[in-house]
Amino acid sequence: MTSRCVYVGRFQPPHCGHLHVIKWALQYCDELIIVVGSAQESYTLKNPFTAGERLEMLRLALADEGLDISRFWLIPLQDIAMNSVWVRYLEVNLPKFDKAVSRNPLVVKLFQDYGYEVLVPPAYKREVCSGTRIRQLMLSNDSRWEKLVTPSVAKYIKQIGGVERIILLAHGD
Amino acid sequence: MTSRCVYVGRFQPPHCGHLHVIKWALQYCDELIIVVGSAQESYTLKNPFTAGERLEMLRLALADEGLDISRFWLIPLQDIAMNSVWVRYLEVNLPKFDKAVSRNPLVVKLFQDYGYEVLVPPAYKREVCSGTRIRQLMLSNDSRWEKLVTPSVAKYIKQIGGVERIILLAHGD
Amino acid sequence: MTSRCVYVGRFQPPHCGHLHVIKWALQYCDELIIVVGSAQESYTLKNPFTAGERLEMLRLALADEGLDISRFWLIPLQDIAMNSVWVRYLEVNLPKFDKAVSRNPLVVKLFQDYGYEVLVPPAYKREVCSGTRIRQLMLSNDSRWEKLVTPSVAKYIKQIGGVERIILLAHGD
Amino acid sequence: MTSRCVYVGRFQPPHCGHLHVIKWALQYCDELIIVVGSAQESYTLKNPFTAGERLEMLRLALADEGLDISRFWLIPLQDIAMNSVWVRYLEVNLPKFDKAVSRNPLVVKLFQDYGYEVLVPPAYKREVCSGTRIRQLMLSNDSRWEKLVTPSVAKYIKQIGGVERIILLAHGD
Amino acid sequence: MTSRCVYVGRFQPPHCGHLHVIKWALQYCDELIIVVGSAQESYTLKNPFTAGERLEMLRLALADEGLDISRFWLIPLQDIAMNSVWVRYLEVNLPKFDKAVSRNPLVVKLFQDYGYEVLVPPAYKREVCSGTRIRQLMLSNDSRWEKLVTPSVAKYIKQIGGVERIILLAHGD
Amino acid sequence: MTSRCVYVGRFQPPHCGHLHVIKWALQYCDELIIVVGSAQESYTLKNPFTAGERLEMLRLALADEGLDISRFWLIPLQDIAMNSVWVRYLEVNLPKFDKAVSRNPLVVKLFQDYGYEVLVPPAYKREVCSGTRIRQLMLSNDSRWEKLVTPSVAKYIKQIGGVERIILLAHGD
Repeated sequence: MTSRCVYVGRFQPPHCGHLHVIKWALQYCDELIIVVGSAQESYTLKNPFTAGERLEMLRLALADEGLDISRFWLIPLQDIAMNSVWVRYLEVNLPKFDKAVSRNPLVVKLFQDYGYEVLVPPAYKREVCSGTRIRQLMLSNDSRWEKLVTPSVAKYIKQIGGVERIILLAHGD
Repeated sequence: MTSRCVYVGRFQPPHCGHLHVIKWALQYCDELIIVVGSAQESYTLKNPFTAGERLEMLRLALADEGLDISRFWLIPLQDIAMNSVWVRYLEVNLPKFDKAVSRNPLVVKLFQDYGYEVLVPPAYKREVCSGTRIRQLMLSNDSRWEKLVTPSVAKYIKQIGGVERIILLAHGD
Repeated sequence: MTSRCVYVGRFQPPHCGHLHVIKWALQYCDELIIVVGSAQESYTLKNPFTAGERLEMLRLALADEGLDISRFWLIPLQDIAMNSVWVRYLEVNLPKFDKAVSRNPLVVKLFQDYGYEVLVPPAYKREVCSGTRIRQLMLSNDSRWEKLVTPSVAKYIKQIGGVERIILLAHGD
Repeated sequence: MTSRCVYVGRFQPPHCGHLHVIKWALQYCDELIIVVGSAQESYTLKNPFTAGERLEMLRLALADEGLDISRFWLIPLQDIAMNSVWVRYLEVNLPKFDKAVSRNPLVVKLFQDYGYEVLVPPAYKREVCSGTRIRQLMLSNDSRWEKLVTPSVAKYIKQIGGVERIILLAHGD
Repeated sequence: MTSRCVYVGRFQPPHCGHLHVIKWALQYCDELIIVVGSAQESYTLKNPFTAGERLEMLRLALADEGLDISRFWLIPLQDIAMNSVWVRYLEVNLPKFDKAVSRNPLVVKLFQDYGYEVLVPPAYKREVCSGTRIRQLMLSNDSRWEKLVTPSVAKYIKQIGGVERIILLAHGD
Repeated sequence: MTSRCVYVGRFQPPHCGHLHVIKWALQYCDELIIVVGSAQESYTLKNPFTAGERLEMLRLALADEGLDISRFWLIPLQDIAMNSVWVRYLEVNLPKFDKAVSRNPLVVKLFQDYGYEVLVPPAYKREVCSGTRIRQLMLSNDSRWEKLVTPSVAKYIKQIGGVERIILLAHGD
């Protein structure tokens, strides 16, 4: 029986913190389902990248890390209004999974209420490596953000004009 | 530059006709994005399987055919109300693609209007191998449907009680 | 511990068949949750009455039958797109229940998959007493429909011009 | 006080029947609000043209007829789920109006229930001049449809490839 | 003719302030329709409880106060996007009512614009007894919240782990 | 070939800043499409007026300025969730346009990415003349707002009780 973990994030953009969790979780399952949440959001300061761009960056990051692509599912998912239905919504839209990965106490509780085992990854220098910090560095045109993503992701973001986009978004109404 | 084709279907369930197209299309691109459309639909006669089940069956079918998983993207996508926005909606939710695969003249036209090259696969005995026919065989408990999907998909459908589900759906209100 | 059954219908309008089920189900629980489904629908041939009108008729019918109002919950509920999430959607929007009432094999299956006991009421002359038949009698201005609802419901429908409404709807585009 | 009539249609495409109603209604009000309904629909057999295309064709038709553009409002409006709220929805989205124009008995009733005067235009050879007939003529590549719209509308439809679009839509899945 | 008042709240959770209004309003009508608003919300800091839980708590509170259940309607209702359609939305989804109860000047105005009589209940120590204060007390694990709801509601909240839920929600992302 | 510019705003309410842009833009196109954005919003502090009221005020303002109504399209449009699809959404719902008017750098970028020419109007004393300032003046019952809209718009707002509405909205929950 294939064991599958689910790991949900917004990946704006995918960074070292995410990769840390991903590699840690691979120890506990055969396949990892990475859910690109808030897929409907893009071109806002909090969610600058489209779902398609985030999927592409995720695959680049996995390749940069030398991970085996065939062990992953990369699935974009729109938000739903009803939080209380959320785990059921995941079950319907994803391949069958038996474990979830999260450090968020509410998410842990929601999965546990449905009977899932939850893996809580060790803390990982969130003050250094978070989507919020990366987007702030980009906004101030501080190139240190490039060190917080893999080389191919940094190159991709530059190719699509990601930094300019975030700066434009900050000047929006 | 990676060349990517997009191929959209409902995959209720994935069958030999789909696999025929998939293998044909792989000749013309590095990666194939398979979009599981109408992802929001399930438990109806026309759409008995959930998006998650269809994703799982697709991967089983690709493996049965010995295809290289790392050349595929399997992406579920909900319908949108506005047909005229549809290609743009795909662009936003998928990795960048440069070609589309379809035999539907309208779909061909929509992609061409956006400047995409469209690959039209050769016809493939649709009277024998179509989702509609498979669901009808299931409804009449005629096991010939099993020959129209790959062995692992047939096994999966039996495991989740897919045939019983379709028969129940036919008795619904 | 209060035992609660849930019974879902469209109640267009509430009729003798519904009351038959309701009285039968009261034997097996302390309270009965009556869900007025498709609450968003009205002013169509299949759903002529608004959710508010259906709630009002239900209470009139229960009173006509001398049933104890305090044993009931009357809850309007809009449809959701995803069938496969439906039971969870009920759980979130209703008081906690432990049994469901239905003759529809699919509905029975859906509730059972969630671990609920399902009560299947005995068949009740559906060819005589169904919403479809009542609406057809109204359309042909055949007063026999009045015998298929309780007296207060018949009076209410006449007061709000329900028969004229259905005839108008049939002349719509 | 400016007197305004509201006239709702789908205008797929605007034709002689619509113009007949429009000219008739202008006798009874200072301004006419033409609502392009089902604005969200397009690229289907029943609704081939986008809201934008329909707005453009309407203005061309009014100009062809030598009508004074400044007496019109052309407003696209999406459908809402709840019929019973529809008149209120119009009130919120349109300039204040005091009369409605319709031959549909249900629409007449809905407006009257809100206290509006309803103008019922005289019948106009519907078997000859209707959107349905025009779309069928187009489908069979029968050029008689051109006589049922104004010259500029016919020219516009040919320019945007409207007939080809409808034929493609008929070959769609 | 049955006189009915409508009273809309979020009831997160139902507390002494609500009961004060409810008992006051009962003097002026035969039946009171209690609308559980924002029914789609739950598992957020501002809306921790599901619609179903709020319905259940409301009935417990009414029973604790010795009120006659048969004089009430408890109706969950989702928010709609358009404020200007709101009163019409209530009319469609509720039994016919002739009065509304509110202290909010805008709500008073909206109902009055539709011709309803509005009952404005006397002020009731809002600094002591409000949903916001109760949720804050829960967050700081201060048991004084228990005095602001009826005994059965306090017991119910403890049974479903309501306080723990709110604390978890505060630790969420 | 008719040249058309598109100009999107919320127009809460239409004021001298908008008119400044409108008159400036008319130099560069035959027709101007004015899009009343966030059409679904009303009766909030940020969006006090309905789409219908805003359309009516816009036409009054254009007439006050002696502009030729037949050169304008006034189109209400609801927001969509997906920013990245927005320009395509405009294309589908509006008459064909070839230029856009905006000072917002992100909007400029979005239109340019679709190949449109963008006209950037000169700055216009935003600290004096903005919707935000007008609504704040109304809130403090400071009649200086009347000088920032045209006379007919000021009269209209007074007629519909617009200032009282905003004050009520500020007292809302």
